[in-house]
Amino acid sequence: MRKASFADMNCSVAQALEIVGEWWTLLILRDSFLGIRRFDDFVERLGISRNVLTTRLDKLVDTGILERRAYDDARGRYDYVLTDKGRALWPVMTTLRQWGDEWILGAGNEPILLEHRDHEHLTTARLTCDVCGEPLDARTVRAVPGPGATN
Amino acid sequence: MRKASFADMNCSVAQALEIVGEWWTLLILRDSFLGIRRFDDFVERLGISRNVLTTRLDKLVDTGILERRAYDDARGRYDYVLTDKGRALWPVMTTLRQWGDEWILGAGNEPILLEHRDHEHLTTARLTCDVCGEPLDARTVRAVPGPGATN
Repeated sequence: MRKASFADMNCSVAQALEIVGEWWTLLILRDSFLGIRRFDDFVERLGISRNVLTTRLDKLVDTGILERRAYDDARGRYDYVLTDKGRALWPVMTTLRQWGDEWILGAGNEPILLEHRDHEHLTTARLTCDVCGEPLDARTVRAVPGPGATN
Repeated sequence: MRKASFADMNCSVAQALEIVGEWWTLLILRDSFLGIRRFDDFVERLGISRNVLTTRLDKLVDTGILERRAYDDARGRYDYVLTDKGRALWPVMTTLRQWGDEWILGAGNEPILLEHRDHEHLTTARLTCDVCGEPLDARTVRAVPGPGATN
């Protein structure tokens, strides 16, 4: 369906999709956030072919989202661990999961919930303004041209 | 690359990707959030074939993310407008855009920025806890089984 690379679109959404827009990629990252690191564990959890997984992991390493960490140098075995750039995708993963919980699975059917560490409560993440702290949604903001706007 | 439907995975991320996981779909939604409604405007902005666009728009209507609104009944012409379910994807779109801004395009190259309506400031959205208001990230939460956990 994809006619051409989105890499040359002047749009951060398109650029981000160029990297994480493939189905398996986001499911690999989901498992990374849940602590999975080993190739064989990804295979087992995702039901993905070893070839496809290798391709996806290589791309995630090339784009700086995962890094390889040797756990058995002699046999050339690696863990795949999130980098800072990869961990920065946590808000995307979380908002996507919450949307699926609310609009597809429905309340009461959430497979996982988030516990706020060092607090006594479960948490739902919401988007707030970094300046004034108010909740944000599509109606309370307006897109304006940024410094990188081309027209 | 996709071996099978993700629809039967008990995971909201997989379920959400089943609907919005195709490249063009998120770019169509990006334009919807920017106020685009007309078929020909999507074609022009996305450089997408009319056939592919028709398929994607039909799927977005079928899954309740966009709705058709007649603007010329006599000629059977429609606008495509976000529903509540579609508008609820705004946090996903916003976090994806911000990640692309920070980690791909880089600070100072943002094509668009968000202005907080009725405030005097630009805004960056951040994820905070709906209970205590603290900022959330991957290190400050822990996944726990929810009511819909299957194992």
